Amino acid sequence: MVEFKVIKGSSTGILVDAVSSREIKSDEVLINVTHSGVCFTDHHYRQADMALGHEGSGVVNQIGSDVTRFKVGDRVGWGYQHNSCGHCKQCLTGRETFCAEREMFGLANFDQGSFASAAVWKEDFIYKIPDNISSSHAGPLMCGGSTVFNALKLNGVRSTDRVGVIGVGGLGHLAIQFASQMGCEVAVFSSTEQKRAEALAFGANEFYPTKGVEKLEIRAPIDHLLVTSNAQPDWSLYLPIMAPEGTIYPITVSFEKLAVPAMDLIMGGLRIQGGMIAPRQIHREMLEFASRHNIIPVVEEFPLTVAGATEALQRLLDGKMRYRGVLVAQK
Amino acid sequence: MVEFKVIKGSSTGILVDAVSSREIKSDEVLINVTHSGVCFTDHHYRQADMALGHEGSGVVNQIGSDVTRFKVGDRVGWGYQHNSCGHCKQCLTGRETFCAEREMFGLANFDQGSFASAAVWKEDFIYKIPDNISSSHAGPLMCGGSTVFNALKLNGVRSTDRVGVIGVGGLGHLAIQFASQMGCEVAVFSSTEQKRAEALAFGANEFYPTKGVEKLEIRAPIDHLLVTSNAQPDWSLYLPIMAPEGTIYPITVSFEKLAVPAMDLIMGGLRIQGGMIAPRQIHREMLEFASRHNIIPVVEEFPLTVAGATEALQRLLDGKMRYRGVLVAQK
Repeated sequence: MVEFKVIKGSSTGILVDAVSSREIKSDEVLINVTHSGVCFTDHHYRQADMALGHEGSGVVNQIGSDVTRFKVGDRVGWGYQHNSCGHCKQCLTGRETFCAEREMFGLANFDQGSFASAAVWKEDFIYKIPDNISSSHAGPLMCGGSTVFNALKLNGVRSTDRVGVIGVGGLGHLAIQFASQMGCEVAVFSSTEQKRAEALAFGANEFYPTKGVEKLEIRAPIDHLLVTSNAQPDWSLYLPIMAPEGTIYPITVSFEKLAVPAMDLIMGGLRIQGGMIAPRQIHREMLEFASRHNIIPVVEEFPLTVAGATEALQRLLDGKMRYRGVLVAQK
Repeated sequence: MVEFKVIKGSSTGILVDAVSSREIKSDEVLINVTHSGVCFTDHHYRQADMALGHEGSGVVNQIGSDVTRFKVGDRVGWGYQHNSCGHCKQCLTGRETFCAEREMFGLANFDQGSFASAAVWKEDFIYKIPDNISSSHAGPLMCGGSTVFNALKLNGVRSTDRVGVIGVGGLGHLAIQFASQMGCEVAVFSSTEQKRAEALAFGANEFYPTKGVEKLEIRAPIDHLLVTSNAQPDWSLYLPIMAPEGTIYPITVSFEKLAVPAMDLIMGGLRIQGGMIAPRQIHREMLEFASRHNIIPVVEEFPLTVAGATEALQRLLDGKMRYRGVLVAQK
C-alpha cells in the first residue's frame, strides 16, 4: 500500500488537498509526478469530489511483479485514459478510447490524477517520454497533443490538404505545429491580431483575425477545420470557406448543441467528426512524431500545489495562458 | 431546334403547363420522357418558375453529331445533375457532384425537367437503364436510389455493419433494399407498426416503432444511421443506440439547424456526414447493383400531366405515397 497526495475539486469549486492510497498490482506502476499539464477539462470537474489532472509526467518509482516494459527511473507520462476491457470490438481494433468499459478522467479512478505527488497506473496505459522532450513539455502532449494529433491522424489528413485551426490556445498551438510538420498548409483563425506572429512561428501559413468580420476571404478552401476554441464558432463564417466534402472537428468540450444548418452539410457534402484523445498506438506515434519534428508546447509553469493549480486555472479562464499551464512538483 | 412541353412551378405553388425549346448540341441527346419519379424536392421548388422533375426515364429520340455511347431507341434515365466543369479537383477525382460549376436541378437549366414530354441533356450525364429494370422503376432510382446508395457506398459501409434506416418512404424503402443486399443487418425505425410487414419484406432484419417511445431498446448498436424522414428526428432517441464511431447521414432536404449535442459526438466519436446524389461512377454502380439484386422501387403511377403531378405531390405531402410516385406519359 502506498500513500500519496492529490489535489481534488470540491462542491464549491475550491481546490483542496487530500490523501489517497493504492496497492500496486502486478501489472501496475507507481509514478512519482514531476509535472502536470492544466487543461480546461480540469476546470469542468473542479466541483466534483475527484482528483484533478490528466496530463501527467514523472518518474517510475516502483513496478508490479508482471511489468516488463518499464523499469524504476524511467520518465513516463499518461493522459485521459487509464484502462479498457481489452476484449471488445473497439479494443481489438485499436480504438480502445471507445471501449464501453473505458476508464477515463471524469469517469473512473476519482482517487487519482496528475495534480498529485504520485499515481498508480496500468503499465499498458502509460508512455515512455522520448529523450529529447522534457517532462514539462511532455505533460501537455498527453491530452492536448494527443487530441489534436488524433483528429489529424485518424481521419487521414494528407500533406496536400489545407488545415484550418480556430483558436490559438493549449490545443490550437499544438494543432498548428502538428499539421504544419505533416506538410499541410495551415490557416489560423483567431479573434484578434494579437497572436499572429506566434501562430506563424508555430508553422501557420496564413492568419485571419475574425473579430467583427462578416465574411472571411481566404486563399483557398479548408479541407479540415479543427475547432479548438472554447465556444462554438459562428458557423456562418466558416461553412462558406469549407472545401467540398471537407471535415469539421469540434474538439473542445462543449455542452451546447451543434447549430450547423443541415442544408450546408448536404449541399457541400461536409462532415462533422466527433472525437477525443488518441488510442494508444496513435498516442505513441504522436510522441514519436513530436520528438522527430521538435514539436514543443509553449508552457507557463506554476507550483504543483493547491495555490499553483488555482492560479493556473484562473489564468486559463481569463484567456491569458500562453499557451499551456504546467504544474511543477516542488522539491 | 426542338420544342417540348414542360410542367413548371409558379409563384402560387400551382403547377402550370409551359413550352420550352432547345438546340441539340453535338454532345447532347434528345430524350422522349416516358416516366418521371416524384420527389419531395419537387414540392420544395413548386413556387419557382422552373420545370419540375429530376427522376427521368425515357427513350433516346435524337443524338448530337459527337455522341458515341447512345443511339436512337435506347432506354435512358437521368437525375439531379446535368453537367459539371470537367477539369476541377472534384471532377478529376470522381466527385463531380461537388464541382463549383455543377449544373443541378434547382441550380440551373430551369427550362427543362422530367415532368415534360422531352428534354435535351449531355450524353455524359445520362444513364442506360438495365434491361431487367422497367422505365417506371428506373425513375425513382435516378435520385432516390442514387442518394441512398451513395451514402452507403461513399462511406465504405461493410457487409458486417449494422445499418439503421429512419423512415420508410421513397428513400427509406430503397435504403433498406440496398443495405440488405449489401449483406448488412438492417434495423428500421418508423413512427407506427403500419409498415412493419413491408419493411421486413424489403429486407429489414428488425423493425422498431418509435411513436411515444422514450428509450429505444435494440439488438445491438447502429454503425450507420440513414435519416430519410422529412423532419429531423429526436436525437435523444437515436444517439444512445449509435455504435462508437458510428456515422449519421442526414439525407433528406432540411432547412433546419442540426440540434445534435456536441458532447455526444465527442464522447462517442460520432460522425455526421452530409451528402447528396451519387457522382456518375457510383450512379452506374447503383444501377448495376439494383439490376443484379432485383432492387425494385414500389411505385404508384399517375398521369404525366399537371393534374397527375399535382395529385402525386399532394399524396406525398399527405404521407400516403407507397412508396414513390411515378408520372407516366400519356399515349
